[in-house]
Amino acid sequence: MADYLNQLHAPATLKKSMLYSISAGGKRIRPILALAVMESFEKDPLQFLDAVCAIEFVHTYSLIHDDLPSMDNDDYRRGKLTSHKVFGEAQAILAGDALLTESFNLITNNTVLTPEQKVKMISVLSKAAGATGMVGGQVEDLEGENKDLTLQELESIHEKKTGKMLECSVLFGGIASETSDVDLIHLQSYARHIGIAFQIQDDILDVTGNQDDLGKPVGSDEANLKTTYPKILGLDGAKKEMEKHIHISLEHLDKTNGNTGILASIANYIIKRNH
Amino acid sequence: MADYLNQLHAPATLKKSMLYSISAGGKRIRPILALAVMESFEKDPLQFLDAVCAIEFVHTYSLIHDDLPSMDNDDYRRGKLTSHKVFGEAQAILAGDALLTESFNLITNNTVLTPEQKVKMISVLSKAAGATGMVGGQVEDLEGENKDLTLQELESIHEKKTGKMLECSVLFGGIASETSDVDLIHLQSYARHIGIAFQIQDDILDVTGNQDDLGKPVGSDEANLKTTYPKILGLDGAKKEMEKHIHISLEHLDKTNGNTGILASIANYIIKRNH
Repeated sequence: MADYLNQLHAPATLKKSMLYSISAGGKRIRPILALAVMESFEKDPLQFLDAVCAIEFVHTYSLIHDDLPSMDNDDYRRGKLTSHKVFGEAQAILAGDALLTESFNLITNNTVLTPEQKVKMISVLSKAAGATGMVGGQVEDLEGENKDLTLQELESIHEKKTGKMLECSVLFGGIASETSDVDLIHLQSYARHIGIAFQIQDDILDVTGNQDDLGKPVGSDEANLKTTYPKILGLDGAKKEMEKHIHISLEHLDKTNGNTGILASIANYIIKRNH
Repeated sequence: MADYLNQLHAPATLKKSMLYSISAGGKRIRPILALAVMESFEKDPLQFLDAVCAIEFVHTYSLIHDDLPSMDNDDYRRGKLTSHKVFGEAQAILAGDALLTESFNLITNNTVLTPEQKVKMISVLSKAAGATGMVGGQVEDLEGENKDLTLQELESIHEKKTGKMLECSVLFGGIASETSDVDLIHLQSYARHIGIAFQIQDDILDVTGNQDDLGKPVGSDEANLKTTYPKILGLDGAKKEMEKHIHISLEHLDKTNGNTGILASIANYIIKRNH
Protein backbone atom coordinates (compact mmCIF):
# COMPACT_ATOMS: atom_id res chain seq x y z
CA MET A 1 0.00 0.00 0.00
CA ALA A 2 2.86 2.35 0.83
CA ASP A 3 4.54 1.48 -2.49
CA TYR A 4 1.42 2.44 -4.41
CA LEU A 5 1.10 5.75 -2.57
CA ASN A 6 4.80 6.60 -2.89
CA GLN A 7 4.74 6.29 -6.69
CA LEU A 8 1.72 8.60 -7.14
CA HIS A 9 2.38 11.96 -8.85
CA ALA A 10 0.48 13.83 -6.16
CA PRO A 11 1.21 16.78 -3.84
CA ALA A 12 3.68 15.82 -1.09
CA THR A 13 1.39 16.82 1.79
CA LEU A 14 -1.46 14.74 0.39
CA LYS A 15 0.75 11.66 0.00
CA LYS A 16 2.11 12.18 3.52
CA SER A 17 -1.36 12.31 5.05
CA MET A 18 -2.54 9.26 3.08
CA LEU A 19 0.58 7.31 4.10
CA TYR A 20 0.19 8.36 7.75
CA SER A 21 -3.21 6.72 8.06
CA ILE A 22 -2.45 3.71 5.87
CA SER A 23 0.67 3.01 7.97
CA ALA A 24 -1.07 3.52 11.33
CA GLY A 25 -1.39 -0.22 11.89
CA GLY A 26 -4.65 -1.95 12.60
CA LYS A 27 -5.59 -5.59 12.37
CA ARG A 28 -5.87 -5.65 8.53
CA ILE A 29 -8.78 -8.03 9.06
CA ARG A 30 -10.42 -7.15 5.73
CA PRO A 31 -7.49 -7.89 3.40
CA ILE A 32 -6.64 -10.95 5.52
CA LEU A 33 -10.18 -12.27 5.02
CA ALA A 34 -9.95 -11.80 1.25
CA LEU A 35 -6.55 -13.48 1.06
CA ALA A 36 -7.71 -16.31 3.35
CA VAL A 37 -10.58 -17.07 0.97
CA MET A 38 -8.09 -17.27 -1.92
CA GLU A 39 -5.91 -19.65 0.12
CA SER A 40 -9.00 -21.73 0.91
CA PHE A 41 -9.77 -22.10 -2.79
CA GLU A 42 -6.15 -22.67 -3.84
CA LYS A 43 -5.58 -19.35 -5.60
CA ASP A 44 -2.24 -17.54 -5.19
CA PRO A 45 -3.12 -14.51 -2.99
CA LEU A 46 -0.01 -12.62 -4.14
CA GLN A 47 -1.59 -12.15 -7.57
CA PHE A 48 -4.41 -10.08 -6.13
CA LEU A 49 -2.69 -7.90 -3.52
CA ASP A 50 -3.57 -4.62 -5.26
CA ALA A 51 -7.28 -5.41 -5.45
CA VAL A 52 -7.24 -6.52 -1.82
CA CYS A 53 -5.45 -3.32 -0.72
CA ALA A 54 -8.39 -1.42 -2.23
CA ILE A 55 -10.55 -2.69 0.63
CA GLU A 56 -8.07 -1.47 3.25
CA PHE A 57 -7.91 1.93 1.48
CA VAL A 58 -11.69 2.23 1.80
CA HIS A 59 -11.60 1.11 5.44
CA THR A 60 -8.86 3.64 6.22
CA TYR A 61 -10.71 6.51 4.51
CA SER A 62 -13.80 5.66 6.60
CA LEU A 63 -11.79 5.85 9.83
CA ILE A 64 -10.31 9.25 8.89
CA HIS A 65 -13.75 10.71 8.16
CA ASP A 66 -15.42 9.03 11.19
CA ASP A 67 -12.82 10.60 13.49
CA LEU A 68 -13.47 14.18 12.24
CA PRO A 69 -14.65 16.82 14.73
CA SER A 70 -18.11 16.97 13.10
CA MET A 71 -18.45 13.17 13.38
CA ASP A 72 -17.06 11.19 16.36
CA ASN A 73 -14.48 13.89 17.19
CA ASP A 74 -11.73 11.44 18.19
CA ASP A 75 -8.19 12.66 18.90
CA TYR A 76 -6.63 9.19 19.00
CA ARG A 77 -6.97 6.06 16.89
CA ARG A 78 -4.88 2.95 17.60
CA GLY A 79 -2.86 4.99 20.09
CA LYS A 80 -1.82 7.56 17.47
CA LEU A 81 -3.15 11.05 16.83
CA THR A 82 -5.97 11.07 14.28
CA SER A 83 -5.40 12.55 10.83
CA HIS A 84 -7.11 15.90 11.45
CA LYS A 85 -5.09 16.38 14.67
CA VAL A 86 -1.87 16.02 12.68
CA PHE A 87 -2.71 17.57 9.29
CA GLY A 88 -5.76 19.73 9.98
CA GLU A 89 -9.35 19.10 9.06
CA ALA A 90 -9.20 20.05 5.35
CA GLN A 91 -6.24 17.75 4.66
CA ALA A 92 -7.89 14.91 6.58
CA ILE A 93 -11.08 15.17 4.54
CA LEU A 94 -9.04 15.24 1.31
CA ALA A 95 -6.80 12.33 2.37
CA GLY A 96 -9.96 10.30 2.95
CA ASP A 97 -11.45 11.37 -0.38
CA ALA A 98 -8.24 10.43 -2.18
CA LEU A 99 -7.95 7.01 -0.51
CA LEU A 100 -11.54 6.19 -1.47
CA THR A 101 -10.96 7.27 -5.07
CA GLU A 102 -7.61 5.48 -5.43
CA SER A 103 -9.18 2.24 -4.17
CA PHE A 104 -11.06 1.89 -7.44
CA ASN A 105 -7.92 2.61 -9.42
CA LEU A 106 -6.10 -0.15 -7.52
CA ILE A 107 -8.64 -2.71 -8.74
CA THR A 108 -8.37 -1.58 -12.37
CA ASN A 109 -4.56 -1.88 -12.17
CA ASN A 110 -4.51 -5.61 -11.44
CA THR A 111 -2.96 -7.61 -14.28
CA VAL A 112 -4.42 -11.06 -13.55
CA LEU A 113 -8.14 -10.41 -13.03
CA THR A 114 -10.39 -10.35 -16.11
CA PRO A 115 -12.39 -7.17 -16.87
CA GLU A 116 -15.54 -9.10 -15.82
CA GLN A 117 -14.00 -9.89 -12.42
CA LYS A 118 -12.88 -6.27 -11.94
CA VAL A 119 -16.34 -4.90 -12.74
CA LYS A 120 -17.89 -7.41 -10.32
CA MET A 121 -15.46 -6.35 -7.56
CA ILE A 122 -16.08 -2.64 -8.20
CA SER A 123 -19.82 -3.23 -8.11
CA VAL A 124 -19.53 -5.15 -4.81
CA LEU A 125 -17.18 -2.55 -3.29
CA SER A 126 -19.22 0.50 -4.28
CA LYS A 127 -22.41 -1.07 -2.89
CA ALA A 128 -20.67 -2.12 0.36
CA ALA A 129 -19.02 1.26 0.88
CA GLY A 130 -21.73 3.62 -0.39
CA ALA A 131 -25.18 4.89 0.56
CA THR A 132 -26.67 1.40 0.94
CA GLY A 133 -23.69 0.18 2.98
CA MET A 134 -20.98 1.77 5.10
CA VAL A 135 -21.85 5.46 4.55
CA GLY A 136 -25.54 4.67 5.16
CA GLY A 137 -24.55 2.89 8.38
CA GLN A 138 -22.55 5.89 9.55
CA VAL A 139 -25.59 8.13 8.95
CA GLU A 140 -27.80 5.76 10.98
CA ASP A 141 -25.14 5.59 13.68
CA LEU A 142 -25.00 9.40 14.01
CA GLU A 143 -28.80 9.56 14.07
CA GLY A 144 -28.95 6.82 16.73
CA GLU A 145 -26.67 8.65 19.18
CA ASN A 146 -28.21 9.40 22.56
CA LYS A 147 -31.18 7.17 21.68
CA ASP A 148 -32.14 3.79 23.12
CA LEU A 149 -31.96 1.44 20.16
CA THR A 150 -33.58 -1.99 19.87
CA LEU A 151 -31.43 -5.05 19.12
CA GLN A 152 -32.80 -4.95 15.57
CA GLU A 153 -31.88 -1.28 15.04
CA LEU A 154 -28.41 -1.89 16.50
CA GLU A 155 -27.86 -4.84 14.14
CA SER A 156 -29.05 -2.81 11.14
CA ILE A 157 -26.47 -0.11 11.89
CA HIS A 158 -23.60 -2.58 12.35
CA GLU A 159 -24.65 -4.65 9.36
CA LYS A 160 -24.28 -1.55 7.18
CA LYS A 161 -21.45 0.25 8.93
CA THR A 162 -19.01 -2.67 9.29
CA GLY A 163 -20.77 -5.84 8.08
CA LYS A 164 -21.02 -4.95 4.39
CA MET A 165 -17.29 -4.26 4.06
CA LEU A 166 -16.45 -7.60 5.72
CA GLU A 167 -18.81 -9.30 3.27
CA CYS A 168 -17.11 -7.37 0.48
CA SER A 169 -13.76 -8.77 1.62
CA VAL A 170 -14.75 -12.43 1.35
CA LEU A 171 -16.57 -11.73 -1.92
CA PHE A 172 -13.32 -10.28 -3.35
CA GLY A 173 -11.64 -13.54 -2.38
CA GLY A 174 -14.45 -15.56 -3.94
CA ILE A 175 -14.54 -13.54 -7.17
CA ALA A 176 -10.75 -13.82 -7.58
CA SER A 177 -10.98 -17.58 -6.88
CA GLU A 178 -13.85 -18.05 -9.35
CA THR A 179 -15.91 -19.93 -6.76
CA SER A 180 -19.46 -21.05 -7.53
CA ASP A 181 -22.37 -18.70 -6.77
CA VAL A 182 -23.47 -21.06 -3.98
CA ASP A 183 -20.03 -20.81 -2.38
CA LEU A 184 -20.19 -17.01 -2.70
CA ILE A 185 -23.49 -16.97 -0.79
CA HIS A 186 -22.07 -19.15 2.02
CA LEU A 187 -18.92 -17.03 2.22
CA GLN A 188 -21.05 -13.91 2.45
CA SER A 189 -23.13 -15.44 5.28
CA TYR A 190 -19.93 -16.48 7.07
CA ALA A 191 -18.73 -12.87 6.86
CA ARG A 192 -22.07 -11.46 8.00
CA HIS A 193 -22.06 -13.59 11.16
CA ILE A 194 -18.40 -13.02 12.07
CA GLY A 195 -19.12 -9.32 11.47
CA ILE A 196 -21.85 -9.31 14.11
CA ALA A 197 -19.65 -11.38 16.47
CA PHE A 198 -16.79 -8.92 15.89
CA GLN A 199 -18.99 -5.98 16.85
CA ILE A 200 -20.31 -7.73 19.96
CA GLN A 201 -16.71 -8.42 21.05
CA ASP A 202 -15.89 -4.72 20.42
CA ASP A 203 -18.72 -3.74 22.74
CA ILE A 204 -17.64 -6.32 25.35
CA LEU A 205 -14.01 -5.12 25.23
CA ASP A 206 -15.20 -1.57 25.84
CA VAL A 207 -16.53 -2.84 29.18
CA THR A 208 -13.99 -5.51 30.18
CA GLY A 209 -10.87 -4.56 28.16
CA ASN A 210 -7.68 -2.79 29.11
CA GLN A 211 -6.64 0.60 27.75
CA ASP A 212 -3.11 -0.49 26.82
CA ASP A 213 -4.34 -3.43 24.72
CA LEU A 214 -7.12 -1.41 23.07
CA GLY A 215 -5.12 1.77 22.35
CA LYS A 216 -8.15 3.80 23.48
CA PRO A 217 -9.94 4.44 26.79
CA VAL A 218 -12.39 1.78 28.06
CA GLY A 219 -15.96 2.73 28.97
CA SER A 220 -16.19 5.28 26.13
CA ASP A 221 -19.41 3.72 24.79
CA GLU A 222 -21.17 4.22 28.12
CA ALA A 223 -19.74 7.74 28.45
CA ASN A 224 -21.02 8.51 24.92
CA LEU A 225 -24.47 7.05 25.77
CA LYS A 226 -24.09 4.49 22.97
CA THR A 227 -26.44 1.55 22.72
CA THR A 228 -24.32 -1.63 22.89
CA TYR A 229 -24.90 -5.39 22.97
CA PRO A 230 -23.95 -5.68 26.69
CA LYS A 231 -26.35 -2.84 27.46
CA ILE A 232 -29.27 -4.64 25.76
CA LEU A 233 -28.39 -8.26 26.56
CA GLY A 234 -26.17 -8.01 29.65
CA LEU A 235 -22.53 -9.13 29.56
CA ASP A 236 -23.31 -12.87 29.69
CA GLY A 237 -26.12 -12.52 27.17
CA ALA A 238 -23.80 -10.65 24.80
CA LYS A 239 -21.15 -13.39 25.10
CA LYS A 240 -23.74 -16.07 24.30
CA GLU A 241 -25.02 -14.04 21.33
CA MET A 242 -21.46 -13.73 20.03
CA GLU A 243 -20.86 -17.48 20.35
CA LYS A 244 -24.11 -18.18 18.51
CA HIS A 245 -22.99 -16.05 15.54
CA ILE A 246 -19.56 -17.68 15.43
CA HIS A 247 -21.27 -21.09 15.41
CA ILE A 248 -23.51 -20.10 12.47
CA SER A 249 -20.51 -18.68 10.58
CA LEU A 250 -18.66 -21.99 10.93
CA GLU A 251 -21.69 -23.91 9.65
CA HIS A 252 -21.67 -21.81 6.47
CA LEU A 253 -17.96 -22.48 5.99
CA ASP A 254 -18.62 -26.22 6.15
CA LYS A 255 -21.07 -25.93 3.28
CA THR A 256 -18.49 -24.47 0.84
CA ASN A 257 -16.17 -26.47 -1.40
CA GLY A 258 -13.10 -24.72 0.02
CA ASN A 259 -10.40 -25.90 2.38
CA THR A 260 -11.49 -23.32 4.94
CA GLY A 261 -9.46 -24.08 8.08
CA ILE A 262 -7.85 -20.64 8.00
CA LEU A 263 -11.25 -18.92 7.79
CA ALA A 264 -12.44 -20.94 10.80
CA SER A 265 -9.34 -19.77 12.71
CA ILE A 266 -10.23 -16.16 11.94
CA ALA A 267 -13.74 -16.72 13.32
CA ASN A 268 -12.30 -18.18 16.52
CA TYR A 269 -9.75 -15.36 16.83
CA ILE A 270 -12.60 -12.86 17.03
CA ILE A 271 -13.85 -14.42 20.28
CA LYS A 272 -10.40 -14.55 21.85
CA ARG A 273 -8.96 -11.17 20.81
CA ASN A 274 -8.27 -8.56 23.49
CA HIS A 275 -8.07 -5.52 21.17
CA MET B 1 -29.68 11.13 -11.41
CA ALA B 2 -32.66 11.73 -9.13
CA ASP B 3 -34.21 8.42 -10.24
CA TYR B 4 -31.06 6.54 -9.29
CA LEU B 5 -30.89 8.19 -5.87
CA ASN B 6 -34.60 7.70 -5.16
CA GLN B 7 -34.42 3.94 -5.69
CA LEU B 8 -31.44 3.44 -3.31
CA HIS B 9 -32.16 1.51 -0.08
CA ALA B 10 -30.39 4.14 2.01
CA PRO B 11 -31.30 6.27 5.06
CA ALA B 12 -33.84 8.99 4.18
CA THR B 13 -31.67 11.88 5.43
CA LEU B 14 -28.72 10.69 3.35
CA LYS B 15 -30.81 10.41 0.18
CA LYS B 16 -32.31 13.85 0.86
CA SER B 17 -28.89 15.48 1.20
CA MET B 18 -27.56 13.73 -1.92
CA LEU B 19 -30.64 14.78 -3.91
CA TYR B 20 -30.41 18.35 -2.65
CA SER B 21 -26.98 18.88 -4.15
CA ILE B 22 -27.58 16.83 -7.30
CA SER B 23 -30.72 18.88 -8.00
CA ALA B 24 -29.10 22.25 -7.22
CA GLY B 25 -28.69 23.05 -10.91
CA GLY B 26 -25.41 23.97 -12.49
CA LYS B 27 -24.33 23.96 -16.11
CA ARG B 28 -23.94 20.15 -16.39
CA ILE B 29 -20.97 20.91 -18.62
CA ARG B 30 -19.25 17.56 -17.87
CA PRO B 31 -22.07 15.21 -18.86
CA ILE B 32 -22.90 17.48 -21.80
CA LEU B 33 -19.30 17.16 -23.03
CA ALA B 34 -19.42 13.36 -22.79
CA LEU B 35 -22.77 13.17 -24.60
CA ALA B 36 -21.60 15.67 -27.25
CA VAL B 37 -18.61 13.42 -28.05
CA MET B 38 -21.00 10.47 -28.50
CA GLU B 39 -23.17 12.58 -30.84
CA SER B 40 -20.05 13.59 -32.76
CA PHE B 41 -19.15 9.95 -33.32
CA GLU B 42 -22.71 8.84 -34.07
CA LYS B 43 -23.34 6.85 -30.90
CA ASP B 44 -26.73 7.05 -29.18
CA PRO B 45 -26.03 9.09 -25.99
CA LEU B 46 -29.16 7.74 -24.27
CA GLN B 47 -27.49 4.33 -23.96
CA PHE B 48 -24.78 5.73 -21.69
CA LEU B 49 -26.66 8.15 -19.43
CA ASP B 50 -25.82 6.25 -16.21
CA ALA B 51 -22.09 6.22 -16.90
CA VAL B 52 -22.20 9.91 -17.79
CA CYS B 53 -24.13 10.76 -14.61
CA ALA B 54 -21.20 9.24 -12.69
CA ILE B 55 -19.09 12.23 -13.72
CA GLU B 56 -21.71 14.70 -12.44
CA PHE B 57 -21.91 12.74 -9.15
CA VAL B 58 -18.15 13.15 -8.70
CA HIS B 59 -18.32 16.84 -9.61
CA THR B 60 -21.17 17.39 -7.13
CA TYR B 61 -19.35 15.58 -4.31
CA SER B 62 -16.31 17.79 -4.93
CA LEU B 63 -18.43 20.96 -4.63
CA ILE B 64 -19.99 19.77 -1.34
CA HIS B 65 -16.56 19.06 0.19
CA ASP B 66 -14.95 22.23 -1.25
CA ASP B 67 -17.68 24.36 0.36
CA LEU B 68 -17.10 22.92 3.88
CA PRO B 69 -16.07 25.29 6.71
CA SER B 70 -12.57 23.76 6.86
CA MET B 71 -12.11 24.28 3.08
CA ASP B 72 -13.56 27.31 1.26
CA ASN B 73 -16.26 27.90 3.92
CA ASP B 74 -18.95 28.95 1.45
CA ASP B 75 -22.55 29.49 2.59
CA TYR B 76 -23.99 29.74 -0.91
CA ARG B 77 -23.51 27.84 -4.17
CA ARG B 78 -25.51 28.68 -7.31
CA GLY B 79 -27.68 30.99 -5.18
CA LYS B 80 -28.71 28.16 -2.81
CA LEU B 81 -27.46 27.36 0.69
CA THR B 82 -24.56 24.90 0.64
CA SER B 83 -25.06 21.34 1.91
CA HIS B 84 -23.48 21.83 5.34
CA LYS B 85 -25.61 24.95 5.95
CA VAL B 86 -28.76 22.90 5.37
CA PHE B 87 -27.85 19.45 6.73
CA GLY B 88 -24.89 20.10 9.02
CA GLU B 89 -21.25 19.33 8.47
CA ALA B 90 -21.31 15.57 9.19
CA GLN B 91 -24.18 14.94 6.77
CA ALA B 92 -22.50 17.07 4.10
CA ILE B 93 -19.26 15.10 4.35
CA LEU B 94 -21.18 11.81 4.16
CA ALA B 95 -23.38 12.98 1.25
CA GLY B 96 -20.16 13.76 -0.65
CA ASP B 97 -18.60 10.42 0.28
CA ALA B 98 -21.72 8.59 -0.87
CA LEU B 99 -21.96 10.45 -4.20
CA LEU B 100 -18.32 9.65 -4.94
CA THR B 101 -18.81 5.97 -4.10
CA GLU B 102 -22.09 5.61 -6.02
CA SER B 103 -20.47 7.12 -9.11
CA PHE B 104 -18.46 3.93 -9.60
CA ASN B 105 -21.56 1.81 -9.09
CA LEU B 106 -23.36 3.82 -11.80
CA ILE B 107 -20.70 2.82 -14.34
CA THR B 108 -20.87 -0.88 -13.44
CA ASN B 109 -24.70 -0.77 -13.84
CA ASN B 110 -24.65 0.19 -17.53
CA THR B 111 -26.05 -2.59 -19.74
CA VAL B 112 -24.50 -1.61 -23.09
CA LEU B 113 -20.81 -1.03 -22.30
CA THR B 114 -18.46 -4.03 -22.34
CA PRO B 115 -16.56 -4.91 -19.13
CA GLU B 116 -13.39 -3.63 -20.90
CA GLN B 117 -15.01 -0.24 -21.54
CA LYS B 118 -16.26 -0.02 -17.95
CA VAL B 119 -12.81 -0.81 -16.52
CA LYS B 120 -11.27 1.81 -18.81
CA MET B 121 -13.81 4.43 -17.68
CA ILE B 122 -13.30 3.58 -14.00
CA SER B 123 -9.54 3.84 -14.45
CA VAL B 124 -9.87 7.23 -16.18
CA LEU B 125 -12.36 8.52 -13.59
CA SER B 126 -10.38 7.42 -10.54
CA LYS B 127 -7.19 9.00 -11.92
CA ALA B 128 -9.00 12.24 -12.83
CA ALA B 129 -10.78 12.52 -9.48
CA GLY B 130 -8.08 11.19 -7.11
CA ALA B 131 -4.72 12.17 -5.67
CA THR B 132 -3.14 12.80 -9.10
CA GLY B 133 -6.15 14.81 -10.28
CA MET B 134 -8.96 16.75 -8.66
CA VAL B 135 -8.19 16.02 -4.99
CA GLY B 136 -4.51 16.78 -5.60
CA GLY B 137 -5.54 20.07 -7.23
CA GLN B 138 -7.67 21.00 -4.24
CA VAL B 139 -4.69 20.36 -1.94
CA GLU B 140 -2.47 22.59 -4.12
CA ASP B 141 -5.22 25.21 -4.22
CA LEU B 142 -5.48 25.31 -0.41
CA GLU B 143 -1.70 25.48 -0.12
CA GLY B 144 -1.57 28.30 -2.68
CA GLU B 145 -3.96 30.55 -0.77
CA ASN B 146 -2.54 33.94 0.23
CA LYS B 147 0.51 33.26 -1.95
CA ASP B 148 1.54 34.93 -5.20
CA LEU B 149 1.53 32.12 -7.75
CA THR B 150 3.25 32.09 -11.13
CA LEU B 151 1.22 31.46 -14.28
CA GLN B 152 2.71 27.94 -14.36
CA GLU B 153 1.68 27.18 -10.77
CA LEU B 154 -1.79 28.55 -11.39
CA GLU B 155 -2.18 26.37 -14.50
CA SER B 156 -0.98 23.28 -12.63
CA ILE B 157 -3.64 23.79 -9.96
CA HIS B 158 -6.45 24.31 -12.48
CA GLU B 159 -5.23 21.48 -14.70
CA LYS B 160 -5.64 19.11 -11.74
CA LYS B 161 -8.59 20.68 -9.94
CA THR B 162 -10.92 21.13 -12.91
CA GLY B 163 -9.04 20.16 -16.08
CA LYS B 164 -8.70 16.44 -15.40
CA MET B 165 -12.43 15.95 -14.87
CA LEU B 166 -13.22 17.78 -18.13
CA GLU B 167 -10.72 15.51 -19.89
CA CYS B 168 -12.39 12.56 -18.20
CA SER B 169 -15.73 13.68 -19.62
CA VAL B 170 -14.62 13.66 -23.26
CA LEU B 171 -12.71 10.40 -22.69
CA PHE B 172 -15.95 8.80 -21.43
CA GLY B 173 -17.56 9.91 -24.68
CA GLY B 174 -14.64 8.55 -26.70
CA ILE B 175 -14.53 5.22 -24.88
CA ALA B 176 -18.28 4.71 -25.30
CA SER B 177 -17.94 5.62 -29.00
CA GLU B 178 -14.97 3.27 -29.51
CA THR B 179 -12.95 6.03 -31.18
CA SER B 180 -9.34 5.45 -32.21
CA ASP B 181 -6.54 6.16 -29.73
CA VAL B 182 -5.45 9.12 -31.88
CA ASP B 183 -8.96 10.60 -31.66
CA LEU B 184 -8.90 10.05 -27.89
CA ILE B 185 -5.69 12.06 -27.61
CA HIS B 186 -7.11 14.95 -29.67
CA LEU B 187 -10.34 14.92 -27.66
CA GLN B 188 -8.30 15.03 -24.45
CA SER B 189 -6.28 18.00 -25.75
CA TYR B 190 -9.49 19.74 -26.80
CA ALA B 191 -10.81 19.29 -23.24
CA ARG B 192 -7.55 20.46 -21.66
CA HIS B 193 -7.60 23.73 -23.58
CA ILE B 194 -11.30 24.48 -23.10
CA GLY B 195 -10.67 23.69 -19.41
CA ILE B 196 -8.04 26.40 -19.15
CA ALA B 197 -10.24 28.81 -21.13
CA PHE B 198 -13.15 27.99 -18.84
CA GLN B 199 -11.07 28.84 -15.77
CA ILE B 200 -9.82 32.09 -17.27
CA GLN B 201 -13.42 33.09 -18.01
CA ASP B 202 -14.34 32.20 -14.39
CA ASP B 203 -11.63 34.57 -13.17
CA ILE B 204 -12.71 37.28 -15.62
CA LEU B 205 -16.37 36.98 -14.54
CA ASP B 206 -15.31 37.39 -10.92
CA VAL B 207 -14.05 40.86 -11.95
CA THR B 208 -16.54 41.92 -14.64
CA GLY B 209 -19.63 39.74 -13.93
CA ASN B 210 -22.88 40.51 -12.21
CA GLN B 211 -23.99 38.90 -8.94
CA ASP B 212 -27.47 37.92 -10.21
CA ASP B 213 -26.08 36.05 -13.22
CA LEU B 214 -23.31 34.40 -11.21
CA GLY B 215 -25.40 33.44 -8.16
CA LYS B 216 -22.47 34.52 -5.96
CA PRO B 217 -20.79 37.84 -5.05
CA VAL B 218 -18.31 39.33 -7.54
CA GLY B 219 -14.82 40.29 -6.42
CA SER B 220 -14.56 37.32 -4.04
CA ASP B 221 -11.24 36.17 -5.57
CA GLU B 222 -9.63 39.53 -4.82
CA ALA B 223 -11.17 39.58 -1.33
CA ASN B 224 -9.79 36.06 -0.74
CA LEU B 225 -6.34 37.10 -2.02
CA LYS B 226 -6.54 34.48 -4.78
CA THR B 227 -4.09 34.48 -7.65
CA THR B 228 -6.11 34.76 -10.88
CA TYR B 229 -5.42 35.09 -14.60
CA PRO B 230 -6.47 38.78 -14.72
CA LYS B 231 -4.19 39.45 -11.73
CA ILE B 232 -1.16 37.95 -13.54
CA LEU B 233 -1.97 38.95 -17.13
CA GLY B 234 -4.31 41.93 -16.77
CA LEU B 235 -7.92 41.80 -18.00
CA ASP B 236 -7.04 42.19 -21.70
CA GLY B 237 -4.13 39.75 -21.44
CA ALA B 238 -6.42 37.20 -19.78
CA LYS B 239 -8.99 37.57 -22.57
CA LYS B 240 -6.30 37.03 -25.21
CA GLU B 241 -4.98 33.98 -23.34
CA MET B 242 -8.49 32.56 -23.22
CA GLU B 243 -9.00 33.07 -26.95
CA LYS B 244 -5.66 31.39 -27.66
CA HIS B 245 -6.73 28.26 -25.77
CA ILE B 246 -10.12 28.14 -27.49
CA HIS B 247 -8.30 28.39 -30.84
CA ILE B 248 -5.99 25.47 -29.97
CA SER B 249 -8.96 23.40 -28.74
CA LEU B 250 -10.73 23.89 -32.10
CA GLU B 251 -7.59 22.82 -33.97
CA HIS B 252 -7.57 19.53 -32.08
CA LEU B 253 -11.24 18.97 -32.89
CA ASP B 254 -10.50 19.37 -36.61
CA LYS B 255 -7.95 16.58 -36.41
CA THR B 256 -10.47 13.98 -35.18
CA ASN B 257 -12.66 11.80 -37.39
CA GLY B 258 -15.81 13.01 -35.65
CA ASN B 259 -18.56 15.35 -36.78
CA THR B 260 -17.63 17.77 -34.02
CA GLY B 261 -19.77 20.89 -34.65
CA ILE B 262 -21.47 20.55 -31.28
CA LEU B 263 -18.10 20.35 -29.46
CA ALA B 264 -16.96 23.51 -31.26
CA SER B 265 -20.16 25.25 -30.09
CA ILE B 266 -19.35 24.28 -26.50
CA ALA B 267 -15.88 25.81 -26.86
CA ASN B 268 -17.39 29.05 -28.18
CA TYR B 269 -20.04 29.10 -25.44
CA ILE B 270 -17.26 29.25 -22.82
CA ILE B 271 -16.07 32.62 -24.13
CA LYS B 272 -19.57 34.06 -24.27
CA ARG B 273 -21.08 32.79 -21.02
CA ASN B 274 -21.92 35.27 -18.28
CA HIS B 275 -22.19 32.75 -15.38
